[in-house]
Amino acid sequence: MNTLATLDTLDTLDTPAALIERTRMQRNIERMQQRMNALGVRFRPHVKTTKCIDVARAQRDAGAQGITVSTLKEAEQFFAHGFTDVLYAVGMAPHRLQHAMELRRRGCALVIITDGAESARAIAEFGRANGEVFDVLIEVDTDGHRSGIRPEEDALLQVARSLHEGGMRLGGVMTHAGSSYELDTPEALRAMAEQERAGCVHAAQRIRDAGLPCPVVSVGSTPTALMAQSLEGVTEVRAGVYVFFDLVMRNVGVCSESDIALSVLTTVIGHQVEKGWAIVDAGWMAMSRDRGTQKQKRDFGYGQVCAVDGTVLEGYVLSGANQEHGILSREGTADTDIAARFPIGTRLRVLPNHACATGAQFPEYHALGEDGALQTWGRFHGW
Amino acid sequence: MNTLATLDTLDTLDTPAALIERTRMQRNIERMQQRMNALGVRFRPHVKTTKCIDVARAQRDAGAQGITVSTLKEAEQFFAHGFTDVLYAVGMAPHRLQHAMELRRRGCALVIITDGAESARAIAEFGRANGEVFDVLIEVDTDGHRSGIRPEEDALLQVARSLHEGGMRLGGVMTHAGSSYELDTPEALRAMAEQERAGCVHAAQRIRDAGLPCPVVSVGSTPTALMAQSLEGVTEVRAGVYVFFDLVMRNVGVCSESDIALSVLTTVIGHQVEKGWAIVDAGWMAMSRDRGTQKQKRDFGYGQVCAVDGTVLEGYVLSGANQEHGILSREGTADTDIAARFPIGTRLRVLPNHACATGAQFPEYHALGEDGALQTWGRFHGW
Repeated sequence: MNTLATLDTLDTLDTPAALIERTRMQRNIERMQQRMNALGVRFRPHVKTTKCIDVARAQRDAGAQGITVSTLKEAEQFFAHGFTDVLYAVGMAPHRLQHAMELRRRGCALVIITDGAESARAIAEFGRANGEVFDVLIEVDTDGHRSGIRPEEDALLQVARSLHEGGMRLGGVMTHAGSSYELDTPEALRAMAEQERAGCVHAAQRIRDAGLPCPVVSVGSTPTALMAQSLEGVTEVRAGVYVFFDLVMRNVGVCSESDIALSVLTTVIGHQVEKGWAIVDAGWMAMSRDRGTQKQKRDFGYGQVCAVDGTVLEGYVLSGANQEHGILSREGTADTDIAARFPIGTRLRVLPNHACATGAQFPEYHALGEDGALQTWGRFHGW
Repeated sequence: MNTLATLDTLDTLDTPAALIERTRMQRNIERMQQRMNALGVRFRPHVKTTKCIDVARAQRDAGAQGITVSTLKEAEQFFAHGFTDVLYAVGMAPHRLQHAMELRRRGCALVIITDGAESARAIAEFGRANGEVFDVLIEVDTDGHRSGIRPEEDALLQVARSLHEGGMRLGGVMTHAGSSYELDTPEALRAMAEQERAGCVHAAQRIRDAGLPCPVVSVGSTPTALMAQSLEGVTEVRAGVYVFFDLVMRNVGVCSESDIALSVLTTVIGHQVEKGWAIVDAGWMAMSRDRGTQKQKRDFGYGQVCAVDGTVLEGYVLSGANQEHGILSREGTADTDIAARFPIGTRLRVLPNHACATGAQFPEYHALGEDGALQTWGRFHGW
């Protein structure tokens, strides 16, 4: 997990390697933080995207308050590195309550979530039996895409009461409009951001109207965070992928290729000249199997190919992938000059469809500074 | 990497977890080995599927000779655990020759491959400059799906001569009919196995006819290895995924669900009753993003759901996935009894689309013996 300076360069680093362009990352961090500051809300980045202490420190240094995690392993790792304000944003499974309690008793201000009566009851029962007052948010479903209680459901107040009367600390409500990933116009994104905000604020209001506490109103996804026109009534926003961005976000319309801070460094290892293919050593094990751009307005295959300096090579994509082989080709007509254009040994970068999935394939990132120096930033893996 | 016996059971193991059913794995190993023995060829398993020493030992104990790897990290790790006969089956990139030579000088009998004049020249030049006689196979393209020189091409003999006259040890030819994964009838698979065999043997014959050595004729993929009717002229077969099998192989037609030895243990963490959804803690981070069954005859979503004892729950699949959330639903009509059928805390297993991709998401496997005891088997990650 330590930051290590290395003597490697982009010409000597073993490939495939996960590369972070720090200038871009820093610009992405500041863009989001400034937006959240302007809208007057706290910002709690989702560290599941990077699972990297160094990145989270840069987010904190820019003004982020607390972190969001998707596993208790992330909570453990970040807590061990001094991040104490942690929202575990996946519905609490009863068998994980013991672990959550242990984390809290070691000093981690872990907040958990529930999206139903059964799990709320399990939390309250376990808490009472163990003398632990858990901080709990209720997950609200504002777009029908996954989990949560809809703002108008009776269950919302039942769960709120069950937690409050069960002796837990009802922290408020949270939602994630994950279906924003399926949109691609500013109008639709703004409308989804407003739907997410309004739904979550409405849920909070119902809880307060019932005489129950609801201090936190937490919303977010990268697209809605960046496109929201108002966050009235919201106290905190969460987003993850914005720190790196990716081709899916480019198609959604919240970044351009030149904002994407994560790429995979790869080497040309062969050719199939008649087909116009170069074979590179970044296959799906490096890029991940994510084909998120397949059903979007532009399909980038397994990734957009760039020169080693980061210049986008328009029209060149990874059109296919085996485990350790990527097939680089030109969209449309075959490039019969492919072997001369990309001789064996040529180093290239590939922008990923989905930064969270691609990053997860690597034990570490190589962070490239403006001066060309590389640092090794650890990331963790598994549960 | 050590085998550790644990006191965990399927009821206490943290989820998501990668589970190996050892009885099935052993049956798969024996089925392949007996077939190879009957056909009179050596069998060299591809360890990229598992990246696990314990699994490779079981393959060796059953009669496998040597291993196939897809990265030099795999070569390093297996060599460190006593596997010395290693075929690195990805086209040799010149910048990796130094590492390959170091492995050989430490006692690893590493064989490398080339698929073109440029890389063959680089190998011979590096070898001569460093006094290293590399063992090299020429990759032959028998199905047009990725890399290699076609058996009838002039380049085949040029490369063979360039290696031989360049002072390298020309070990022979190898091919991988990866397009067999796209087939799904016994007739088509048998025909592809014969095409793979005949093409590779033809390439070997041309090399021998030119007065050059070609002792090894290495072919293979799981489907062609299992469906080949004759392997005349072949000296060795390679296959990887057969050791676990998966839903893609089930659709190809070389295994049934009850042969699949790898599954992901998961816990139900919530419901969306109106939609007939149970939410489980195996999302795409656990299952991988592989949707290999999407274009096959049966689409299993992100995986086939089974009871914790392994019984297939026909019609129940992971129909959607976020990073740490899986959506379990019934195919066809929504199951409005979903919450009663799978209460919160229910443990299930999910069979993966693609065992190589799913396994790679986990730092270790949990190997379940016939007696119900679990062992932790390490696997490695990265490059």
